[in-house]
Amino acid sequence: MTRLIAYNWLNAPLAIPNAEIGRLAQLRQMQLTKPPGALGRLEEVAIRLAAMQNTVKPDVKQVHITIFAGDHGIATEGVSAFPQSVTSEMIKNFEQGGGAINVLARMLDAELEIVNLGTVLDVQTPDDSVKHYFLGPGTANFSREPAMSQEQLNMALAAGYDAIERARHTDNQLFIGGEMGIGNTASATALACLLLNEQPIRLTGAGSGLDHAGVMRKASIISHALGLHKPHIHSPLDALRYVGGFEIAALAGAYLHGAQIGMPMLVDGFISTVAALTAERISPGCIRWFIFSHRSAEPGHGIVLAAIEGKPLIALDMRLGEGSGAAVAVNLLRMACKLHNEMATFSEARISQKIDAS
Amino acid sequence: MTRLIAYNWLNAPLAIPNAEIGRLAQLRQMQLTKPPGALGRLEEVAIRLAAMQNTVKPDVKQVHITIFAGDHGIATEGVSAFPQSVTSEMIKNFEQGGGAINVLARMLDAELEIVNLGTVLDVQTPDDSVKHYFLGPGTANFSREPAMSQEQLNMALAAGYDAIERARHTDNQLFIGGEMGIGNTASATALACLLLNEQPIRLTGAGSGLDHAGVMRKASIISHALGLHKPHIHSPLDALRYVGGFEIAALAGAYLHGAQIGMPMLVDGFISTVAALTAERISPGCIRWFIFSHRSAEPGHGIVLAAIEGKPLIALDMRLGEGSGAAVAVNLLRMACKLHNEMATFSEARISQKIDAS
Repeated sequence: MTRLIAYNWLNAPLAIPNAEIGRLAQLRQMQLTKPPGALGRLEEVAIRLAAMQNTVKPDVKQVHITIFAGDHGIATEGVSAFPQSVTSEMIKNFEQGGGAINVLARMLDAELEIVNLGTVLDVQTPDDSVKHYFLGPGTANFSREPAMSQEQLNMALAAGYDAIERARHTDNQLFIGGEMGIGNTASATALACLLLNEQPIRLTGAGSGLDHAGVMRKASIISHALGLHKPHIHSPLDALRYVGGFEIAALAGAYLHGAQIGMPMLVDGFISTVAALTAERISPGCIRWFIFSHRSAEPGHGIVLAAIEGKPLIALDMRLGEGSGAAVAVNLLRMACKLHNEMATFSEARISQKIDAS
Repeated sequence: MTRLIAYNWLNAPLAIPNAEIGRLAQLRQMQLTKPPGALGRLEEVAIRLAAMQNTVKPDVKQVHITIFAGDHGIATEGVSAFPQSVTSEMIKNFEQGGGAINVLARMLDAELEIVNLGTVLDVQTPDDSVKHYFLGPGTANFSREPAMSQEQLNMALAAGYDAIERARHTDNQLFIGGEMGIGNTASATALACLLLNEQPIRLTGAGSGLDHAGVMRKASIISHALGLHKPHIHSPLDALRYVGGFEIAALAGAYLHGAQIGMPMLVDGFISTVAALTAERISPGCIRWFIFSHRSAEPGHGIVLAAIEGKPLIALDMRLGEGSGAAVAVNLLRMACKLHNEMATFSEARISQKIDAS
């Protein structure tokens, strides 16, 4: 499970959605038996999916969900409300079907796979139920040293590449990436600050449930770490290596490769959006393949979304990760497609059209 | 189909959700393998449904949707972007399965019924596929005279009562009311202005697609009508009779009776929310049974929602009616229930809990 891919796959060209098909899908929307625009953002989603899938009648029946998990050295600084053992315990919970994402994946009849990139505690699972990469016992503590070696970064990115390849080979129409890793809002916040040249105090939030003092402490630790590493960071990949996490790098790799092969991707919350921003900064144009699912309760999310022009479909104050916000939004995409494909047109239903304003 | 119910059913006592079951459901949420509160509003929805359904494990598998349709005399004043014939044509479209709500009901495996309360054009449909009440060829033009007679109002309210009884007798766990009627945003806007003592200019919107001049004209017609009727209006029922519509009164009747029997109800957009407000004003306490589904693009919706303390789950710029926004939100309720019922607890999954702040 530690296949190395030639580093330069990162520079492969991106796919481009079919604008002509998008235009035809838009024309179809105008003919359906409803006032033009009355389905709001569901119309926009159907049109975008049509252009992405290169068909006037798009569909997202087959959904692939990959949860990337990994531990974070920064967790030893006390930046999380939960102990670090929870990463491994939750991998086990996913394997046994008890997590939120398991429940949602069952409801959606989606493929769900768990990829363990490296945790502090050993995770014992039956063969093949969890994919293990073993990049290390979590990342290094980025408040003191770079989170990852160059080799670890390459392998984490490649783990994302692999997930997209698996999703493609089972004919999936939509990819969702999710993450699990105690301490990963600290890592994502640091990464977002580097990419957006923002101050940690503006982006740092409670994660899984810090109190106010905890949030202040977390912001201060991130701030100190950024001061330490900034002189050495000259690219988005550097930023990812110095302060990112295994699972965040894997997500970025997945988003990048998904955009290369033209896979529609539904982006989850704060951490996933930071990974999406990273992919976009590594290879501009990835955003054409992103649909943003939900606005998280984490305060940095709005800022990162704005930077990447992401307009999430829902805002339910969720802040769980695991791809759960994206999974909750899948039915909106399915409904958008079905409405687009199955509603009668004005002429089919012999319905009078709008009165011309005069 | 024109059964008259004794008028005083409107005064029957309301059911009350079981607060103790709600508390037990809240305790269960705290034990599930996620940070407390991390599922955001999905937790709140599951807890409310538990209290409404009197079970710690709520469910909304069985959904009943009733679309009430009727014409509006006010349409002859040119307050809609579509000709009045569209009400009848859309009833036919619903009967043939081509409307947005048909597509959504099929996806949800929901019961869908169409109730025609009275249109200008005759609607020919096969036996029993549409329920016909024939309260008149639409309401009277409320810019000149009261929209309904007392008898018409009673019959429209009773049509809503009947829909709830049908939903109850087929064991449904959730009721959605929808509406279709050219001119009905004008009627709903006038009604909301009376109930909230608001100015039409603040609440009037484009409906199915008026331009700016059209919206101004519509506001002015409503304003004039309110001046005409206000001296005669002494109760919410008066307001409903003078400026309401058959389908709006039927929705109000359904919401009222739903609250009497304790049926969870998912409220659609602007017009449905005005009907929900009317029910609440007729019999305070109905709101305990409402879940608000979506925030419509119609500008008055936010004002009416605020008045009734409604916090919709989604905001997708939809403005179609037909119960479509509520139908789109059903899966959120289903997911909220499944997550609540099926996620592992911390002890089942042997996961470490949150670190106590100290």
